[in-house]
Amino acid sequence: MNEDRRLRALRGRLLWFVGDPETSGDAAHRFIGDGLVVIADGLIKAVGAASELLPTLPEEAEIVDHRPNLIMPGFIDAHLHMPQTQVIASYGAPLMEWLNKYTFVEEQKLAQQGHPEKLTRFLLDELLASGTTTAAVYCSVHRQSAEAFFAESERRNTRMIAGKVMMDRNAPAALTDTAESSYADSKALIERWHGRGRQLYAITPRFAVTSTPEQLAAAGRLASEHPDCFVQTHINENQAEISLACQLYPNADDYAGIYRDYGLLGRQSLMGHCIHMTKHEWRAFAEAGAVAVFCPTSNLFLGSGLFDWARAKREGVRVAVATDIGGGTSYSMLRTMAEAYKVLQLQGQSLSAFAALHAITRGNAVALGLDHLIGSLEPGREADVVVLDPAATRAMAHRLETARDLAEELFVLVTLGDERNVAATYVAGERVGDQPSTPPFLAKSI
Amino acid sequence: MNEDRRLRALRGRLLWFVGDPETSGDAAHRFIGDGLVVIADGLIKAVGAASELLPTLPEEAEIVDHRPNLIMPGFIDAHLHMPQTQVIASYGAPLMEWLNKYTFVEEQKLAQQGHPEKLTRFLLDELLASGTTTAAVYCSVHRQSAEAFFAESERRNTRMIAGKVMMDRNAPAALTDTAESSYADSKALIERWHGRGRQLYAITPRFAVTSTPEQLAAAGRLASEHPDCFVQTHINENQAEISLACQLYPNADDYAGIYRDYGLLGRQSLMGHCIHMTKHEWRAFAEAGAVAVFCPTSNLFLGSGLFDWARAKREGVRVAVATDIGGGTSYSMLRTMAEAYKVLQLQGQSLSAFAALHAITRGNAVALGLDHLIGSLEPGREADVVVLDPAATRAMAHRLETARDLAEELFVLVTLGDERNVAATYVAGERVGDQPSTPPFLAKSI
Repeated sequence: MNEDRRLRALRGRLLWFVGDPETSGDAAHRFIGDGLVVIADGLIKAVGAASELLPTLPEEAEIVDHRPNLIMPGFIDAHLHMPQTQVIASYGAPLMEWLNKYTFVEEQKLAQQGHPEKLTRFLLDELLASGTTTAAVYCSVHRQSAEAFFAESERRNTRMIAGKVMMDRNAPAALTDTAESSYADSKALIERWHGRGRQLYAITPRFAVTSTPEQLAAAGRLASEHPDCFVQTHINENQAEISLACQLYPNADDYAGIYRDYGLLGRQSLMGHCIHMTKHEWRAFAEAGAVAVFCPTSNLFLGSGLFDWARAKREGVRVAVATDIGGGTSYSMLRTMAEAYKVLQLQGQSLSAFAALHAITRGNAVALGLDHLIGSLEPGREADVVVLDPAATRAMAHRLETARDLAEELFVLVTLGDERNVAATYVAGERVGDQPSTPPFLAKSI
Repeated sequence: MNEDRRLRALRGRLLWFVGDPETSGDAAHRFIGDGLVVIADGLIKAVGAASELLPTLPEEAEIVDHRPNLIMPGFIDAHLHMPQTQVIASYGAPLMEWLNKYTFVEEQKLAQQGHPEKLTRFLLDELLASGTTTAAVYCSVHRQSAEAFFAESERRNTRMIAGKVMMDRNAPAALTDTAESSYADSKALIERWHGRGRQLYAITPRFAVTSTPEQLAAAGRLASEHPDCFVQTHINENQAEISLACQLYPNADDYAGIYRDYGLLGRQSLMGHCIHMTKHEWRAFAEAGAVAVFCPTSNLFLGSGLFDWARAKREGVRVAVATDIGGGTSYSMLRTMAEAYKVLQLQGQSLSAFAALHAITRGNAVALGLDHLIGSLEPGREADVVVLDPAATRAMAHRLETARDLAEELFVLVTLGDERNVAATYVAGERVGDQPSTPPFLAKSI
């Protein structure tokens, strides 16, 4: 096959980031009103004005005209739970009760033949339909759940991070492993999946409450043996959780100290949710380069509290954003950022549309240390792309009639947007399904 | 025309309320798994099990089969601004700045020929598509804006409450009236529209900050001359607003005292937003029977604060819920209650799905004193009805696979739902438009 025939170019309004809008302002983003993203072999080969790039393309190149839609790097979700897609929207409980009453019940089903596969297919369908092309995913305690997840992700060629949960106490017997088995299972999964195609492994002790010291030590051993793997866990989400964790680890300085003591607090560590942090803990995070993962819909839904974004930045702590399905209530990173805006507004902080869109693309890519691969439209990056129609709903189209500039349009997109605004998603250059636009109910006045 | 030919019956799962779930528990709701709502002349004639009612219907009756969808009374929205449908999602400002920078700019356009008509058509389209059949609406300062709103509402035969804003200071000159002109214009509107068909008038001083004492006195005179009209205004949304109001009315006890002093705090008074209330003000509300209007998406979006629902109930204060478009960010009362749940969770309060669905139907009807007309499926009520498909989106259908009972299904509907779940809306027995279901993008796994 002639390589030229595989060239594909996406035409539309291009938007991506080369820096952080909160520190670099308008210099942080690149916007091309009529641009082209040229893709071959799953990678972005060129990006620029259509007028400049079109004449350079071979005649056989496929040009997909997405004008006037926005073309951005695919969204990145830094924390979610694959076994919880049927736990989402469970009623009326703060964290610990919610875990016991809903989550641990559903997660036991992952032992059933075919169930992890089913949940994974649903999850990846939903993420891709929402424009999310990379996520850091907790599977269940069952090794098979991670096997199923990676196998499906590999089949779709998505750039995913996942791990089998390690959990050896304070959970139903059917959901516990042991320090030894969790080490062995995780090790086997790492050897099989980490770095295979686009799959990456995250060592996943659920949190200090459900791991014995022996298990955290095993997790730390894995982290030191596989320093390029991620570590993902939970910290400082809820007061009852914090008390319990500190009680279970009486020798630790504080909650962050537990993870640090076991070698689990480093630059690869993705720590949800960091709501109730002491000054000492912020400092420990900054020194370790650990990432605080902000999950606004979850933090509101579970009543956990308000993440202090400005404080994290002031303390020099790296931040990522995430849905936290199923404590979170939306698969959409747009909706997630609308809720982030609200969480920050309640604290007198303002999140611009540029900052929000940066957070879910380049920002999360940097936090994950994957910005050389994803989160940008720069040549050389993997061609994970989302095409967005900011006027997809009638209310948004009506609102946009008065938008004066790109910043205003993008703020409407972030504030009112969700998966309905995703016109197309590309994974490594290949288009995923077909997203028709919103049905035209009452599109005309009655 | 034979009257029988006009009989229409809606078949589906019926849900409505006869009491408050927060005080009466399960006795507060009525649920019929296969029910019929029989409608004639715009009113509900009978309601009950399909097996019992079907044999009683004449042969010519039209039966609309909405099974397995839910059939509920149309939703009620107790506070929103018609001129702000193009202000929604404006960036980064707390209340006073937001008013000056965005709202007062857009509201000036309402003086343009045809603009109030355009915004009204959009608003009513969007409300009905969201299942909202009654709303309490602020028009602009221009008398013509209220004329346009009522004319369009009358044309659609919707049960609406609206009023021309009264505002004679602290706003652009193009947006101010005078105490005298606002009295005369409001009076003329009341005489023309209040009680005509399904239209109801609300005397609408925007808030104490934008009205002189003379204007509040004029508003109070209108309220005493027309005790069956509503009064709608704002109070205690934001600290800067509170300081300014109290500064402008130095003789008042407090912010609530300003309105009480002018005869504007009574059982017909709809007071948004009541976030920062003193004990003395809660008591004044309880004694007056005034209604505190809770607008969760707005309170979060503008960073105003958290409404204390439990406190209001404890103080014996009547509560309504509302979108507050355009400070609010969704036209959907379902989405509004999802955000209400989060606001309460942050305060350690839990809102059940029954309480949430009660609030947007019978609860708001009671707060508006209109429960003899709307908010229920009982015979004699006006046939404003919403038909809901809780499985309208893929994520919801997936989640509902594991729902064990009605309460769980309804909680999913409230938490994840929005206008996509509205399968049909009926206004006084007539179906509005056609709402196709969500497009089946990725309905099958890839």
